[in-house]
Amino acid sequence: MPTQRSALTRHAAVQLDAADPLAHLRAEFLLPAGRLYFAGHSLGPLLQRSQDRVLQVLRNEWGRDLVHSWESQDWLALPQQVGRKIARLIGARPDEVLAADSTSVNLVKLLTAGLRLRPERPRLLGIEDDFPTDRYLAAELAATHGRRLELVPPAQLLAALDRDVALLLLSHVHYKTSERFDLEGLTRAAHAQGALVLFDLSHSAGTMPLDLRGADVDFAVGCGYKYLNGGPGCPAFVFVAERLQEQVRSPLTGWLGHVDPFAFAPEFAPAPGIVRFQCGTPAILSLAAFAAALDVFADLDLAQVRTKALALGEFFLATLHARGRAADLLLLSPQDPQARGSHLAFRHPEARTILNALKQRSVVADFRPPDILRWAMTPLYLRYTDVWDAALILDQVLSEPGDRSGVI
Amino acid sequence: MPTQRSALTRHAAVQLDAADPLAHLRAEFLLPAGRLYFAGHSLGPLLQRSQDRVLQVLRNEWGRDLVHSWESQDWLALPQQVGRKIARLIGARPDEVLAADSTSVNLVKLLTAGLRLRPERPRLLGIEDDFPTDRYLAAELAATHGRRLELVPPAQLLAALDRDVALLLLSHVHYKTSERFDLEGLTRAAHAQGALVLFDLSHSAGTMPLDLRGADVDFAVGCGYKYLNGGPGCPAFVFVAERLQEQVRSPLTGWLGHVDPFAFAPEFAPAPGIVRFQCGTPAILSLAAFAAALDVFADLDLAQVRTKALALGEFFLATLHARGRAADLLLLSPQDPQARGSHLAFRHPEARTILNALKQRSVVADFRPPDILRWAMTPLYLRYTDVWDAALILDQVLSEPGDRSGVI
Repeated sequence: MPTQRSALTRHAAVQLDAADPLAHLRAEFLLPAGRLYFAGHSLGPLLQRSQDRVLQVLRNEWGRDLVHSWESQDWLALPQQVGRKIARLIGARPDEVLAADSTSVNLVKLLTAGLRLRPERPRLLGIEDDFPTDRYLAAELAATHGRRLELVPPAQLLAALDRDVALLLLSHVHYKTSERFDLEGLTRAAHAQGALVLFDLSHSAGTMPLDLRGADVDFAVGCGYKYLNGGPGCPAFVFVAERLQEQVRSPLTGWLGHVDPFAFAPEFAPAPGIVRFQCGTPAILSLAAFAAALDVFADLDLAQVRTKALALGEFFLATLHARGRAADLLLLSPQDPQARGSHLAFRHPEARTILNALKQRSVVADFRPPDILRWAMTPLYLRYTDVWDAALILDQVLSEPGDRSGVI
Repeated sequence: MPTQRSALTRHAAVQLDAADPLAHLRAEFLLPAGRLYFAGHSLGPLLQRSQDRVLQVLRNEWGRDLVHSWESQDWLALPQQVGRKIARLIGARPDEVLAADSTSVNLVKLLTAGLRLRPERPRLLGIEDDFPTDRYLAAELAATHGRRLELVPPAQLLAALDRDVALLLLSHVHYKTSERFDLEGLTRAAHAQGALVLFDLSHSAGTMPLDLRGADVDFAVGCGYKYLNGGPGCPAFVFVAERLQEQVRSPLTGWLGHVDPFAFAPEFAPAPGIVRFQCGTPAILSLAAFAAALDVFADLDLAQVRTKALALGEFFLATLHARGRAADLLLLSPQDPQARGSHLAFRHPEARTILNALKQRSVVADFRPPDILRWAMTPLYLRYTDVWDAALILDQVLSEPGDRSGVI
C-alpha cells in the first residue's frame, strides 16, 4: 500500500510505477516535457491519436473530400458514434448517449425536458454551491417554466426530496470539494417520490466505473475536455434513459434533431431516440479529436482506473502528511477516499500565491476562489513518481513563505 | 461584360481570370486537385492558414501549454476576437458580434430575447419555406412564449407587418432560391410598426457588402462554414445592436455569459455587451480554424467580392443559354442578379441524377429536394474558367439522358 509510511520514498514510487497496470497508457499522450500536470480535471492533455485524427480530417476530409465527407465519412453520425464510446464509460446503452454542444446547452435541453415531464410539480431541487453553470441554468429554467428552484446543503438533499420535486439536478462529483454523491441512492430516493434525476458527470465520467442503467438514472450530461481528454471546448454529452426517450423532446428543435433533416419538412418532427437531442451542425474538428481520445478507453477496466486514481491521491496525502503538511493544507475533500472523485481539494489562505509558485517550478495544479487548490489525480498519464515529485515541490513552496509573496 | 455572347469562349474566360482583382486569393485555399467546387454555400474549402493555425493550437497550445492557454493565448476571448472579424463583414461595430455555438442555438438566444422585448405582441412573423432550423425554432419558441407563429409567402411580408408583430425572422438570402430580401426596407417597415427584426445571414455574410448598423438591424445570426470557410460545424455568430444589448438577456445563462465567470458567484449576472450571449466553453479547435479563415477577408473590398460573384453567375447563365439549356434548366433564382445572393438555383425533374453524373465528372454542386440544383458562385477561389468548364460539363450531362438513369 502506498499509504504505508515505510513506503514513502522516491524508490517506492518508482516501484509502484513499475507495477502499475496502466503505466503503458502514458506513452499515448503528448505531454509537455518537464511539466508535472495535475490539472486534468480542467483540461485533459492531447493524445497522439487525437492529433493524427485532426490532421486526417484537415487533409483528407475537409481539405480534399469537402462537402462529400458528410456522407462518405459519416460526419453526421459522429455525435452518435462518440456517444456510443461514452456510453460504455458511464454504463449506458449505446443508443442512450449523444455528443453535442456544450454541457451548458445540454443542461438546457434536459432541464426543460425533465420539467415538462412533471408539469404539476412546483420545485426544482439542487445543492448550494454546485457548479455555476448548473445553478444559473436551473434558476433560469425554473423561472421560465414557473417553478421554484430550491438549493439546499448536500446533507439536506434526502430530506428535501418530496412529492413537490419535479427534478433533482446534481453534479455527481463536486467540482470544488471532490465530494462524490450517492448517485444510486439519490436516484432511488427521488424515484420513490416520483421525481426525476439529472446528474452532471463532468467530474466523474472516465475516472470510475459508472452504471447509469443499473442505477436507473433518468438524465445526465457531462463534459468532454476534462478526464475524457477531448480537447478545449470539445462537445459535451447528453444521456437520456431509453425508457424516457420517446416521451421527451428537446426544446432546442434544430434541424439535426429532426427525423429527416434533409427532407426540409415544414414541421418539426423529432428523430427517434437520442438523436432528437441534436440541434445544430456538429463541430467536426473538435468532435474528431474527442472521438479519437475516447479510443484510449476502449479496452480499459474502469475499476483499475478508479483504484489507481485513489492510490495516487492517497500517496500524495501520505507524502504531505509525512512532511508535516497536514496542518498547513486543510483537506477540503472527504477523508474517505471512496467518498471522493479523482481530484483533491485543499484550503490554504495563500492558495493563489502557492499556485503561482508551483507553476514557476513546472507543477500545474489549479485554484478556485477564494482559497482552494485542486490537484487532479489522473491515472491515465500520471505516475507515482510525478505525485512524489509534486508533493516535494509543494512542501518546498510551503516552507518558503518569503518567496511566495513575490509571486502574484 | 462576361454576359456578351461574343465573349463566350474559354479564351474569354482566361482573359477574365487574368483581369480578376481577386484572382490571387485562390492560392490561399487547399483545393482538391481536378475538382470544380460549386458547393461553397454548403461547406467552404480549407485555407492553408486554417490548417496552420489548427496545427499550432494542437502542438503549442493544447499540446504544450495546456490549461495555461486559456490565459496565455486568450482562448476565452476568441469568441469576441472572431466576432470582431465578422463585424467588419456585416457592417457591425466590433463589439456587436460574438462567435459561439451553432446557428440553431443562437436563434434560440435571439428569438427568446426578441420576444421578451415585446411581451404584449402576439405574433412572430416569418416566411413559408425559410430554412428549416429557423422555422422549427420559431415555432417552438413562439409556443413556449405564448405567441403565434405566422408564416407567409415572401410577397406578403410587408402587408403582414402590423402592430401585433413582435419580431420578424427572415433569412437575408433564401437558402434554396437565392432570393435576396430587402434587409434595409424590411427593417424600416418593421420598425415603423414597432416590431423587431432578426436576420439569418448564413447565405449572405462574406459574399456582399452588408451594413447592419446603417440599416438599423436589431438582431442577426449566421453560419461560419459556408462563405466564411470556417470549417465543418464551426461556431456560428450572433449580432445584437449595441442599443439593445443592455436591455436583452440570453435565456441560455451559461457560466461564460456571466459578468465574472471565475468568481463562481451564486447568482447569474449577465456580462456587459455581447458577451452575455456566450453560454458554454467555446470549441477551440473549430474556432481557431474559423479565426484564421476570416483573415483572408481582412483587406478585402466586399463590393469587389459581390461584383465577381454576380459576374461568375452571369457568365454561367450566359454559357448555358448559348448552348440552349435555358429551357431544360428552369432558373429558380431571381432573373435580376441584384436580387440574388451568391448561388444559383435551378429546377430540373432529374436534378438528383444530374448531380450524381456531375460528381462522376468531378463537378461538385448540390441538390435540395425535390428537384433543385444549387451552384455557389464563390469569388474567393472560383475562376471564370472553372465556371466555363462546369457549364460545359453540365451541358454534356444534360445531353446524355441515357447515362443519367444509370447513376443514382
